[in-house]
This record gives sequence, C-alpha cells and structure tokens, in this order.
Amino acid sequence: MPKRIGRYTIELETNPAVVGFAAVAGKKEYEGPYGQYYDQCHTDTTLGESSWEKAESRLQNEAVQIALKKSKLKNTDIDCIFAGDLLNQCISSTFGLRSLDIPFLGQYGACSTMAQTLGIASLFVESGAAARTAAVTSSHFCSAERQFRLPLEYGGQRTPTAQWTATAAGAMILGARTQYQAAPVGIRAITFGRIVDFGLKDAANMGAAMAPAAANTLEDYFNDTGSNPQDYDLILTGDLGLIGSELLDELMNHEGKDIRSVHNDCGLMIYDRNKQDVHAGGSGCGCSAAILCSVILQQMSAGQLHKVLFIGTGALMSPTSQQQGESIPSVAHLVFLQA
Amino acid sequence: MPKRIGRYTIELETNPAVVGFAAVAGKKEYEGPYGQYYDQCHTDTTLGESSWEKAESRLQNEAVQIALKKSKLKNTDIDCIFAGDLLNQCISSTFGLRSLDIPFLGQYGACSTMAQTLGIASLFVESGAAARTAAVTSSHFCSAERQFRLPLEYGGQRTPTAQWTATAAGAMILGARTQYQAAPVGIRAITFGRIVDFGLKDAANMGAAMAPAAANTLEDYFNDTGSNPQDYDLILTGDLGLIGSELLDELMNHEGKDIRSVHNDCGLMIYDRNKQDVHAGGSGCGCSAAILCSVILQQMSAGQLHKVLFIGTGALMSPTSQQQGESIPSVAHLVFLQA
Repeated sequence: MPKRIGRYTIELETNPAVVGFAAVAGKKEYEGPYGQYYDQCHTDTTLGESSWEKAESRLQNEAVQIALKKSKLKNTDIDCIFAGDLLNQCISSTFGLRSLDIPFLGQYGACSTMAQTLGIASLFVESGAAARTAAVTSSHFCSAERQFRLPLEYGGQRTPTAQWTATAAGAMILGARTQYQAAPVGIRAITFGRIVDFGLKDAANMGAAMAPAAANTLEDYFNDTGSNPQDYDLILTGDLGLIGSELLDELMNHEGKDIRSVHNDCGLMIYDRNKQDVHAGGSGCGCSAAILCSVILQQMSAGQLHKVLFIGTGALMSPTSQQQGESIPSVAHLVFLQA
Repeated sequence: MPKRIGRYTIELETNPAVVGFAAVAGKKEYEGPYGQYYDQCHTDTTLGESSWEKAESRLQNEAVQIALKKSKLKNTDIDCIFAGDLLNQCISSTFGLRSLDIPFLGQYGACSTMAQTLGIASLFVESGAAARTAAVTSSHFCSAERQFRLPLEYGGQRTPTAQWTATAAGAMILGARTQYQAAPVGIRAITFGRIVDFGLKDAANMGAAMAPAAANTLEDYFNDTGSNPQDYDLILTGDLGLIGSELLDELMNHEGKDIRSVHNDCGLMIYDRNKQDVHAGGSGCGCSAAILCSVILQQMSAGQLHKVLFIGTGALMSPTSQQQGESIPSVAHLVFLQA
C-alpha cells in the first residue's frame, strides 16, 4: 500500500512493475544521439495525416499500441489510461486514444505530464484500484509552434534561450508486482510538486522558469527520504534544457546538494545541440516521455542503470496568460524508478 | 482499500469522507433556482480582476478557500489538490491555485472534470496515498465564450440546442474516514468512463454528443454492481442539458433501465430555463461542481438525500478539432456518494 514518508513523498511498498514501454519519434529526433533507441520513427512530420494535430494523435496512439504489443497485452487488459499533451483541450490524447476503449483520465501538467501520468498510474496499481494501467504523453513541433507561438510559414527567429518542441510520444504499461514478479524495473516512490512561480515572464526561456520548481520537488524528496544525490545513478529532469539545467544545478548547490555528477536532462539528451540547431535543447511532453521510454528504460532493463529519479517539469502558462502580462507558474513531479 | 467490482467499477471500502465543500457563483447563477445554496455570489463578472480569465482563477481560489474554512483546515493540511477547467492549458486552475502551496495535479475532462477530480481525490484518500485531498473545478461564461466560440462583443446568436456556460466553481475536501467518522457523506464507488464518439459534429449541441458516454458509464456501473436506477435517490448528470438528458433517458430505456423518475441534470437545475434565456440549459465544469457542492451535498448532509450517483459528462473536442471537421469524442465518469 502507498505510504507517506515525510511531508510530500509517497512510497510504493508493492513496487509496481514496468510491464512494457515504447517511444515513437519524428525525423529530427531520430537524427539525435538516441535515435536508434526509439521503437518507431517517422520521416514525414504529418505521419500521412491531414493535419499536425492528427499526426500528434497518431504518435500517441502508436506509442500505446507498441507498448501493449511489447507487453503481450490487449487494450482490454488495461483498466485505466492516463494521458496528456500540450494542445488546447488535450486533443492529441482524446482523439489519439478514443479508439482504444480504455477508461480515460486526461492529465495536464505541461511538460511534466509524463511524470504526472506515470505517478498516478503507478498509484492506481499500488492501491489495487487497477491491475494494469497505462501512462502516455506526446508533443509535436508543428502543432505546438502554431498554437503557442507563430505560424511556421512566418519563419520567426528563435532566441538562444528557446527550446525545440520534440515530435515524439512515450508510453508505459504498469502492472501489479504479484503478476509481474520478473519485470526488471519498478516504481518505488513519488513526490508530487507544488506550483512555484518566481515571477519570470519570458516564454522563450521556460527552462529558467521551471528550474526552481524542479529544485523544490527534488529538495522535498531528499528531505522526506533522507537520501542524497549520490544515492542515485541518474537524476533525470525533463525538460529544462541548457539554461534550466545549469540553474537547477546551481540552486541545488546552494542547498548543499551537488547533483552535477549524476544529473542529466531529457531536453539536452534528445538532440545534438552542436549539430541540430535547437538552441537551449528539446522540450514538450513527448521529449521526456520518449527519452524515458526508450534509452533509459532499456538501460535499466539491461542492468546498466539501477536507481533513477525522473523529474518532469512543466511551465503552466498559456498564450492568453502571457498576453495578459502574467508570469509563468511551474511545477515538477518526481518518480523514483529502480531496476 | 479500493476493490474492483466487475469490469469497470472501483468500490471504496473505507468510505472516504466529504470533509467540506463550497460553491461560488456569478450573478445569473445566483438568480437561478438554487442561488441561495451557494456560499458566495458575485454580481460583477470580472470579480474586480482585469480579465475574465483572472476572474475565473479567482472563483476557483475562493471555492477552495471557503471549503477549507468550512472544514476548519489550512492549505497545508491538504496533501494533494486535483483541479481542472475548460481554458487552454487549464490556466484557471494553475493561476488560481498557485498561491496555495499544495501538491498540484492538473486534470482535463472538459465538463466531466468535477467527477474526475472527485474520483481520483477519493482514491488517493482510500489508498492512504493522502490523508486529505481537494477536488475543484470552475468555468466562466465570458472566458469560455471568447475561447471556444466568438468574442462577446460580436453578439452572436445561439442555437436552441446550445447550453450556457456557468460562471461558477465548486470545491470539495476529502479525508480518511478514520479521522472523520462523523462526516455525513462518503464516497462509495467510482466508474471511470471510456471515450465514446457517435460521430456527432455540432458543437452547439454537445448534450447530444455526451449522452451516449453517460449511458455507457451508467450501464457499466449497473452491470458491475448489479444495482438498478430505483436503488438511488438521485442520478445526477452534469451537464447534458435538455436535449442530452432526454437522449440519455431514451438510451437507458432501450437498455431496460428506466431512470426518468430519479434522473436530474445539473445543467437543467442551475438556471430557470423559462425565465433565464439559456436555451438547452447550463454547462461548463463549474456548473456541475457548483450544484454538487451546494444544494446536493447540503441536502445529503441534512439527510434529505441518501444515495446519489453523480455522473460528470465531458465533450473532449477543441475549436481546432472542430475546424478540422472532426466529430466530438465524449466521456463520462461516475461517483457514487452516500449519506
């Protein structure tokens, strides 16, 4: 049963199993350093669909279908699916998953959504509310650009602090440990974050806005568990990019927790910043979802990584809130995965 | 501990307690049949804020603050808050609740969001993942109109099948039964719905699009529990309005479950359709939230209502999906409350 440790952390005593996982990505992501780890890549950004929104829906659907197939499960074996994305009214998720006939719970945590869906999906399994659950998120460069920024045809210049929204989706299937005793990876603890707002207003520098939220949740977790950065093989944030990652390292240093030797960020991993012209790195729900559900879980399954803190970070603004002069509230959710 | 009954229903054995609740509403809602049941009403649709979006954030914040006060609790007593709304990127929730410093999990289920947040919040308490949780949603006529339809200044005519988005918010505080043994109302079961899409495309007739989802979830619940409509004092949908409600009654009749004598709909309750010019009734997350968190829970607490099935219904489309010619996927989540 879930057990609260300290003020903010929930320990999962039954160690819910990662039964399966899959990542689907676009061309630019395939050309990145971890391209060979994805289950499927698309060279056409439309995926043959008539709009980018429909393409993103399809990314999400494919990620779930492949994760189910790899888990040797059917859609009807899943009791509940937790899904979210960046589009208004989460239409990538609702349209992408409507054919699956699985009880659907839409989640919104901006780029923290993979950690949020994974955390809740694990808790449902831990508590017995579900035997098997799924967690999935996606993002698409083209659908995000035109919704959050400018029409692609306009050819707007991006600032050096901007991040590149990944065209990708990642899905995980969770199951009760009693049924999946041999599954190599399990979920051990979760810390859901509080909203943090340091007053930053630059939507082209969301890494900086999100770093304090990541620091806050990470400190909560260390305080609650009495553990230290060195107790983990990897502290994986997603997606702070270059500026946010450096800021997080600095903020944690101020708290006497040096994470630099074990910290990496999905936004820094997904592209080769020297060659791929993505400025401060990648972003979008699909970025951390695809990195976690490919190279990270593959390495954990192979015994190359054991203890991983996955921290999804989200900037909770909208174009409307920006136009009204508001700052950027942020949140970060942490999931401790152990192989 | 939560226990699965049948294929889709989760029974809550510990009977999590409704510790407190509150509803905040606007002028038109105050003038409706249940105006005197709300905790707070605003005659100014801006609530003194500089935008309708900020006004909606404030509705949500006030609903939580009043519910906390009525529960004799502080924000730090809440382990997790589940919140959602209709605005892009759920900004009513993120901005409305950012000052509360409570672990935040954004939810998106369109107008089904109150049932979704309440269901998950109850499960967190039932499982021990949280000692106390909060569930809150809001909507605002003006922020919804300009985002989903047309600028208010345009003065567009509404079709007879259209519903009126309520300016309202409702919040509930849930707590472990061991701590709140005397609390009159508890949560007994939850059925999370699957996405249903009958191919309807008229965004001015969302009641019709959502009715099949409500029927689906209600049938799942009756099948899973072996119960019948007559076992309940009230089957409360929100928000199908006039057309959706009649359709649901008909669909249930076809299944041999006549719900007419116990069925009511928050969209039909919130306004006086004869006097208030709202066409097919009310809608918006805040509609069902405000009705549930005022008259319904007050009557349950007073022993006037005992067994209530609350079914939140949501139309999971967006203006973009509509413009791309898509149909309207819908979902309905059910929560069984007992006094």
